[in-house]
Amino acid sequence: MRFVLVHGSWHDGGCWDGVRHHLEAAGHEVHAPTLPGNGPAGDPAVTMTQVVDAVVDLLEDGDLRDVVLVGHSFGGAVVQQVALRVPARLRRMVFHNAYVVRDGAAVFDEVPASVAPAFQALAEAAGDGTVMLPFESFRDGFCNDADLDTARAAYARMTPEPLARSTEPLALAGFAELPVPRSYLHATDDNVFPAAEFSWHPGMSSRLGAFRLVQMHGSHEVLFSDPAGLADKLVEAGRD
Amino acid sequence: MRFVLVHGSWHDGGCWDGVRHHLEAAGHEVHAPTLPGNGPAGDPAVTMTQVVDAVVDLLEDGDLRDVVLVGHSFGGAVVQQVALRVPARLRRMVFHNAYVVRDGAAVFDEVPASVAPAFQALAEAAGDGTVMLPFESFRDGFCNDADLDTARAAYARMTPEPLARSTEPLALAGFAELPVPRSYLHATDDNVFPAAEFSWHPGMSSRLGAFRLVQMHGSHEVLFSDPAGLADKLVEAGRD
Amino acid sequence: MRFVLVHGSWHDGGCWDGVRHHLEAAGHEVHAPTLPGNGPAGDPAVTMTQVVDAVVDLLEDGDLRDVVLVGHSFGGAVVQQVALRVPARLRRMVFHNAYVVRDGAAVFDEVPASVAPAFQALAEAAGDGTVMLPFESFRDGFCNDADLDTARAAYARMTPEPLARSTEPLALAGFAELPVPRSYLHATDDNVFPAAEFSWHPGMSSRLGAFRLVQMHGSHEVLFSDPAGLADKLVEAGRD
Repeated sequence: MRFVLVHGSWHDGGCWDGVRHHLEAAGHEVHAPTLPGNGPAGDPAVTMTQVVDAVVDLLEDGDLRDVVLVGHSFGGAVVQQVALRVPARLRRMVFHNAYVVRDGAAVFDEVPASVAPAFQALAEAAGDGTVMLPFESFRDGFCNDADLDTARAAYARMTPEPLARSTEPLALAGFAELPVPRSYLHATDDNVFPAAEFSWHPGMSSRLGAFRLVQMHGSHEVLFSDPAGLADKLVEAGRD
Repeated sequence: MRFVLVHGSWHDGGCWDGVRHHLEAAGHEVHAPTLPGNGPAGDPAVTMTQVVDAVVDLLEDGDLRDVVLVGHSFGGAVVQQVALRVPARLRRMVFHNAYVVRDGAAVFDEVPASVAPAFQALAEAAGDGTVMLPFESFRDGFCNDADLDTARAAYARMTPEPLARSTEPLALAGFAELPVPRSYLHATDDNVFPAAEFSWHPGMSSRLGAFRLVQMHGSHEVLFSDPAGLADKLVEAGRD
Repeated sequence: MRFVLVHGSWHDGGCWDGVRHHLEAAGHEVHAPTLPGNGPAGDPAVTMTQVVDAVVDLLEDGDLRDVVLVGHSFGGAVVQQVALRVPARLRRMVFHNAYVVRDGAAVFDEVPASVAPAFQALAEAAGDGTVMLPFESFRDGFCNDADLDTARAAYARMTPEPLARSTEPLALAGFAELPVPRSYLHATDDNVFPAAEFSWHPGMSSRLGAFRLVQMHGSHEVLFSDPAGLADKLVEAGRD
């Protein structure tokens, strides 16, 4: 299978290294780009168009076909937009604890009301058009299934997240009707947002229409805490 | 233990073969009848009375006692009715991702509103008093944890489901008060219906009154994707 | 790690023996007191103050610091109150299928409305200021993942639960603001209360503010049915 893995906020393509290792060892092809705006040299003013263009270019420049396009977290919104641009190149979309955004909404519109003020305060504290997570939030909310060393190593990879692109309303008309099969890969111990207000599944997944559900144990950062398990589940989610 | 396994819509008794193999190897007795109306020679006009009579006859003709009566999916409604007829023959009822129907309702009354129109359209397309699932729906919605070969082999076993019996209002007064212990065996990755509208547990299970909850990973068709695991959980659900 | 394990209703400190064995074998220190009012010689009129004093005394008399304070079920309310008394002695609080009570509420205020009458009737039947669970309820509702012998052995350990302390309104102002990290360890097959009305997670856990979520398979009595698994998860929940 040919995977293109789209990372989430604060992450970069290298965060998939563990997963990539297991997928490649099983004979799969893996592309894991760093999105414009992410990584150490990220531009806070990057637009969603630049982000989507980068992934579309990767597919077109390499003439990639039969792609299993995977989006993690923020990456879900990218997958949706790429699918609208180059549906014929995709064999399946896989959303892994990922946003599925409604037409005309922005990614930040999906953030639960009880979380938004703290998020806003962090952004204002940064003051440079980015937001960074405190380690305590990341350790218990994102890496809750990892030991402290794994959580620290994961956090060391995180870089400030550009804010502007996540406030852009997204044109997603036609997404529901795209003839590209879709899967939702749900790590069930994700504790990023309050479960009483928000859920990846069925909250986000229900926006996909018909989809294949694949579930596994693990936190939002299961790509760090259990890369082998996640690789197996990506195959389950991505296969025909 | 003495199991009587009642299959669901589109299935027949042979669909339990994998599960039966594991149960018998562990020393249990297994009966897995094909319900009237199902299988290749099924009569679309079969009534619920005929279906229930067939299972009651199986128990009475064989003088079966201490039966662990298991219903999968549609089979849950059959278990309810058989239990009202011959409660003294039952040691326990087990509902496995199965309907628990309210007194006076029909099985189809439990189908979520968002799904009913598509279901209706499929029935009208068949035009012979049956309904058949398209493979795509079965593969991603029912067999989401299976590989493609397993899903295809399972689908090859499915036969058209008679419609009439599932539109009959069922007389289920007294079911709640039956002194037969009950278990709900919930395969947690079932994706047959939209999770925001419908759940086997707690949606259906909550109608049982006091019950034993047993959960496992797996799709609606875990009898095909993990028959050994399901056999183990049937023992957990069925034991005293 | 230094664990102090606070048991729930009907239990005593010895109910942790299996868990203690595994934790100590892994090099951890374990204290598992029997709360005043529980055990064979329990006084039905025991007050919540006496209960909390007993745990505070244990920590102060032994000059215990860096304590991972674990509460199971009823024990959650005890952990909350102890934390308000001696926060500096705690490294983390762990709530395991445990109540998290609101300021001014009593433990019994959290019992779902559909369950309260049956509970009341059992209490009146006892007539001595205690309540005892019938075995059938305990076996299917509390020990649903255990075999019959394990359920019977567990039930043989249960003793009548004093009622008065669970009707006391608790002074819990300031609990949310305590600078003690908190985890919720959720055994996902718990079937003590109707899932449509009540959940440990996210129902109770959502009252913790930010917390680490740890989940495992198992019933309310996973301390009996899988003590090794619970010990592992207590370490995951309690570590930094």
